[in-house]
Amino acid sequence: MLEINTYAATSATGDLVPTRITRRDVGPHDVLIDIKFSGICHSDIHTVRGEWGDQQYPLVPGHEIAGIVTEVGSDVSRYTVGDRVGVGCMVNSCRECVNCLAGEEQYCLAGNIGTYGAKDVDGTITQGGYATHVVVNEDFIVRIPEGLELDVAAPLLCAGVTTYSPLNHWNAGPGKKVAVIGLGGLGHMAVKIAHAMGAEVTVLSRSLKKQEDGLKLGADHYFATENPETFEALAGSFNLIINTVSASIDISAFLQLLSLDGALVNVGAPAEPLPVNAFALITGRRSFAGSMIGGIRETQEMLDFCAEHKIGAEIEVISAEDINKAYERVLASDVHYRFVIDTSTLV
Amino acid sequence: MLEINTYAATSATGDLVPTRITRRDVGPHDVLIDIKFSGICHSDIHTVRGEWGDQQYPLVPGHEIAGIVTEVGSDVSRYTVGDRVGVGCMVNSCRECVNCLAGEEQYCLAGNIGTYGAKDVDGTITQGGYATHVVVNEDFIVRIPEGLELDVAAPLLCAGVTTYSPLNHWNAGPGKKVAVIGLGGLGHMAVKIAHAMGAEVTVLSRSLKKQEDGLKLGADHYFATENPETFEALAGSFNLIINTVSASIDISAFLQLLSLDGALVNVGAPAEPLPVNAFALITGRRSFAGSMIGGIRETQEMLDFCAEHKIGAEIEVISAEDINKAYERVLASDVHYRFVIDTSTLV
Repeated sequence: MLEINTYAATSATGDLVPTRITRRDVGPHDVLIDIKFSGICHSDIHTVRGEWGDQQYPLVPGHEIAGIVTEVGSDVSRYTVGDRVGVGCMVNSCRECVNCLAGEEQYCLAGNIGTYGAKDVDGTITQGGYATHVVVNEDFIVRIPEGLELDVAAPLLCAGVTTYSPLNHWNAGPGKKVAVIGLGGLGHMAVKIAHAMGAEVTVLSRSLKKQEDGLKLGADHYFATENPETFEALAGSFNLIINTVSASIDISAFLQLLSLDGALVNVGAPAEPLPVNAFALITGRRSFAGSMIGGIRETQEMLDFCAEHKIGAEIEVISAEDINKAYERVLASDVHYRFVIDTSTLV
Repeated sequence: MLEINTYAATSATGDLVPTRITRRDVGPHDVLIDIKFSGICHSDIHTVRGEWGDQQYPLVPGHEIAGIVTEVGSDVSRYTVGDRVGVGCMVNSCRECVNCLAGEEQYCLAGNIGTYGAKDVDGTITQGGYATHVVVNEDFIVRIPEGLELDVAAPLLCAGVTTYSPLNHWNAGPGKKVAVIGLGGLGHMAVKIAHAMGAEVTVLSRSLKKQEDGLKLGADHYFATENPETFEALAGSFNLIINTVSASIDISAFLQLLSLDGALVNVGAPAEPLPVNAFALITGRRSFAGSMIGGIRETQEMLDFCAEHKIGAEIEVISAEDINKAYERVLASDVHYRFVIDTSTLV
């Protein structure tokens, strides 16, 4: 067992603090990763604060992990010491259900095993990436291609694949009009990726505050949804809308912005049910859909795509001691566009 | 102008009564149809009673029309006197918008022109099928194939295509598990058509009252939704669910019955918005969608399919004088499964 440094929550209400934890020994199919960078996802905050269910503490969050392989198990064939690798939101799944067999482990019928706060196959609770090291089964590791720096790659493991997957599944590409609701951690990746896929990209943000940023990131158009005229001007415009906002929004109003056979895809899940006007669906054969991260194969595909198109996240690298401050800034939407922890500061 | 017999509503509250109206002269692209049978759709009742907006009276409802061509305009090339033809829910559209050009006239961006109660191109209000004759532009007429009797064909023009279209669009067929919510006029057609397409069909009805009927119509399974165990037993089961019930149902509970990438398609629109739990969508990349009748090309395809598979509606043929009684029975769900007016009784 390896004893390592982390930043962990020790309760639902307190700050995260430096905490020593142990990682399991490297098994035959395991890889030991020296974590270099770990992104801060909004869901880390929800989880450690118990807003998505009770947790066991100490809890180390973090599921946007980029690092270097430092040891491999006896049966590991695909990775060797020195490889640049990443770990995202899950570290295992049942591997037997129809969804796992289809390479869509995120939809594992037994429930995928989350990177932190989840019950692992050995009965222990998984601990995440705000740490110097992690031990992960090789089947849930992806390769970070050369040309993609580890710091800007880290957020791709969640924010990147969460937006790549629906853009890919619903065929964003040349000739397609894609709108992105919200320009935060997920939204800014959706804009970059949809643009790289060749789609015509529109940001739908509450205000025009981040318009300059949005256009720089690759958006072709930028509209403020606080202006009711936006909904008239854009009626029936989009083939695909990716909703990255987890607060409740007027879904029926946004559905009216879809053209025939268009889909509005939520990548987050607000706590409250969203009222949907069926009339908005039937008058254009529209769909209101949802998507959750991506499978391991698709995560690798996304990283290869991002490397090819030179896409990384827009990040602000912080020291471990700034994690609690960063949480407050995430909650205040004061981040451009992802905090990434330099794990060498975990001392 | 041709003066003809109809049954019409003269107000939002009174009974339908025998009423003489005129049809326009047969224009170069028009076809005069001697109506033989006209189905009674639940939406006829909503419309004549003003529940879907104010109407002009007298109003002749009916958009499930089957009859014989008795006269064709000078430029009509595709139909001749004696042809067996049908007219469904629309009699024209703008023909210029992207949806019309794609053959999806039902989604015409200018709004398709409904068979009754809609403003026609000449400014008059269209009058429907509870009548001895109708004059319709040849582009909005379909051919009823030999082997399909006119009486059982009439309801296919609305109930048939409304269910065929989403089954076709979402690829119901061999290896696919399809559920149908509700076993009424639309539901019974959905069961017959999905079965003929080769899908494994399950009826989800409030009770088991119509179970014997459902299995006879082609369902492989039948479950009562008033039994909470149904939702546990069928979790994650279906590729496609067609919701034919226009009352509000717990959409989120039904969404949980879909397997990965499954879609729940509403073919009706309840007046109130439906609360949708986004979590039910994102955990299986599920979709909540809507579909409205079908285009003219697809309506013809549906009729050809039904003729090939010897599918007609289950009907109860009535005389015109029984229309008002039939309305009460439709509202009481006391119909197996469609009333069809024998228009020779319109005297």
